[in-house]
Amino acid sequence: MKRKIPAQNKAVVLLSGGLDSAVVLYLAKNRGFDCRCLVFDYGQRHSREMKAARDIAGKAACRLQIIKIGFPWKGSALLDKRIYVPEYSRSLRTANTRPRILANTRTREHTNNIPSTYVPGRNIIFLSFALSCAEAIGARSVFIGAHAQDYSGYPDCRPEFYRAFRKAASAGTKAGVENRAIAIETPLIHKTKAQIINCGRTLGVPFGLTWSCYRGGKKPCGKCDSCCYRAKGFKEAGLIDPASQEGL
Amino acid sequence: MKRKIPAQNKAVVLLSGGLDSAVVLYLAKNRGFDCRCLVFDYGQRHSREMKAARDIAGKAACRLQIIKIGFPWKGSALLDKRIYVPEYSRSLRTANTRPRILANTRTREHTNNIPSTYVPGRNIIFLSFALSCAEAIGARSVFIGAHAQDYSGYPDCRPEFYRAFRKAASAGTKAGVENRAIAIETPLIHKTKAQIINCGRTLGVPFGLTWSCYRGGKKPCGKCDSCCYRAKGFKEAGLIDPASQEGL
Repeated sequence: MKRKIPAQNKAVVLLSGGLDSAVVLYLAKNRGFDCRCLVFDYGQRHSREMKAARDIAGKAACRLQIIKIGFPWKGSALLDKRIYVPEYSRSLRTANTRPRILANTRTREHTNNIPSTYVPGRNIIFLSFALSCAEAIGARSVFIGAHAQDYSGYPDCRPEFYRAFRKAASAGTKAGVENRAIAIETPLIHKTKAQIINCGRTLGVPFGLTWSCYRGGKKPCGKCDSCCYRAKGFKEAGLIDPASQEGL
Repeated sequence: MKRKIPAQNKAVVLLSGGLDSAVVLYLAKNRGFDCRCLVFDYGQRHSREMKAARDIAGKAACRLQIIKIGFPWKGSALLDKRIYVPEYSRSLRTANTRPRILANTRTREHTNNIPSTYVPGRNIIFLSFALSCAEAIGARSVFIGAHAQDYSGYPDCRPEFYRAFRKAASAGTKAGVENRAIAIETPLIHKTKAQIINCGRTLGVPFGLTWSCYRGGKKPCGKCDSCCYRAKGFKEAGLIDPASQEGL
């Protein structure tokens, strides 16, 4: 007979195929959660990260659910190939400063301080699906790998967004009304990329399976913001990135 | 040359094919907004409401965008035909009481005071898409026809949910960071069904095109909660429902 897993042991983990969400999955597993992973096929530039998510979930022996959604209105370099993907910005914050929106250095790449790779409402949509899934399957936690430091100034990666979302999730669900609100867990929110990598190392995260590059070539481009933040993180952690051919 | 509509005149309206969202669309149009309507094909029991949404948007001469999304986890009578759709509950609140979660009268229909037609996280998902659309097209407002009175006790129709969602929408978007947060408008939130119907009458809402029934027959069933709330509203407003064959 199949053993029924108690609700307090179930979690929904938002997986992107990238390094951060892979670390979060391993953190949740390490805390004893039975994890259901969600990955979104949302018309992104390439499907390389979907393959990575499948590989990571497979390695972690967790169920992966692919959610296909459309963003018919585009409005981001990750959805529209006509929009330029920014390369490593000179205005990178240092690892230990407070999270803040990056200063604008290149108009074509960062409009009003927020990069062209920002997808309007992406994280709130992903979180809402995860919340729905958690409520439907009786999970008590949702995990997301967002972090404000070492990142590209996305509003929906900031701690204040998650604080507000938790209140909406509590007020707008049956679980919340019944005083068993689903926890929105952001265990990486105050960590630097180097700290996340070190955390992943201790948990045995298969970094070689993760994909961070905004572009979808056979190998990471090594030039986009995401590749460069990753390389910087590995360098600061004193590790070699198994997914990369060369450092910065 | 096509005239560019200023951002403050654009709005995204969540249309369901039902009466409430049709009234909201006409309210938004009456306030001078150029409306983009969104309707969701989310695997609901029937497609009758999709046709209604198309007809209403067409009549209002507004653009309609159909968003196809999956709820692979079911967990609602609106998504899973094996779950019973509740019929008119004896525990209906009166029209003038404060919004509250309905008392449980029939276990099979209302689990823990919330009806089986509750779809986990549905409104937060719909609102998140509307927010994304609004940000991408440069609209400053999102309209939704939720109201707490005369309804079936859905947590995501309560004023406290919308208050919390507004904060999340402001914190998690580029528009919010730039101090031009997208307004989440709930003009019906404190109105009774009869007040909504009267409001719609003055605005010329084509009630005959709207569809409220949870079931997808050729005619409204007249028995489900939604049909009965609608019939009660028309009766209290002293009007005949053009979409219905008979009253309560």
